[in-house]
Amino acid sequence: MKDLSCIFCKISSGKIPSAKIYEDEEFFAFLDIKPINSGHALLIPKKHSVNLYKITDEVFARMAPVIKKLAVAVKKAVSADGINIGMNNDPAAGQLVFHTHIHIIPRYSEDGFKHWRGKRAYKDGEINQVAEKIKQTIWH
Amino acid sequence: MKDLSCIFCKISSGKIPSAKIYEDEEFFAFLDIKPINSGHALLIPKKHSVNLYKITDEVFARMAPVIKKLAVAVKKAVSADGINIGMNNDPAAGQLVFHTHIHIIPRYSEDGFKHWRGKRAYKDGEINQVAEKIKQTIWH
Repeated sequence: MKDLSCIFCKISSGKIPSAKIYEDEEFFAFLDIKPINSGHALLIPKKHSVNLYKITDEVFARMAPVIKKLAVAVKKAVSADGINIGMNNDPAAGQLVFHTHIHIIPRYSEDGFKHWRGKRAYKDGEINQVAEKIKQTIWH
Repeated sequence: MKDLSCIFCKISSGKIPSAKIYEDEEFFAFLDIKPINSGHALLIPKKHSVNLYKITDEVFARMAPVIKKLAVAVKKAVSADGINIGMNNDPAAGQLVFHTHIHIIPRYSEDGFKHWRGKRAYKDGEINQVAEKIKQTIWH
């Protein structure tokens, strides 16, 4: 099912051209036109879903080996030193297009991008309280 | 198979304590002790692999629905506005522990973390050359 207003649905159906790198029955991958580094790719399911919370377990499970395949290929093709996989869910996490997509980002030792470092510290016992709350949420 | 020198193998086998949030036969998740935000979790396969290039397709496919399950639970438990999923492969991409792990990071609209923005621009025709090179690498 296509969402006719969704730019990624238009890209995967060929209505909007893209620098395609991969396509199978269920998935489509193309180069980000504003790359972190050259070769920065986006992998999407053809079936529209908004993000991780809405993609089905089955589709996401079939997507995982494709992420791996593309990561290996991108790294080799652009002679990168490493690969970041990223997925932004909701605007607060940097999601700009509301169709599930995985960033596959080639990295170089001296490319100048700074990784986030944890800036919070848990108080005594707090980490176990937070863990308990998440556990309760998973199982209930 | 455990790598006896690997800190994440020690955590998933209980030799080193952690704030565990999830465990099944194959996977283990716990809270990062230096979180981006409270509730920042790490999901690992119990079977040792170095990173995305080395995890088997089968294990990674089974891991995907667990990523989704934990993302939904973490978001709800800490009332986050969004979730970043991240995976750093190789030191150049920020990998610090050499056992496959997925970051599940709760985000808030005003938490101050800056997203990377693409700072490169492709020259005329360059994007298609790069795409072609990646395509060749995938299929050959």
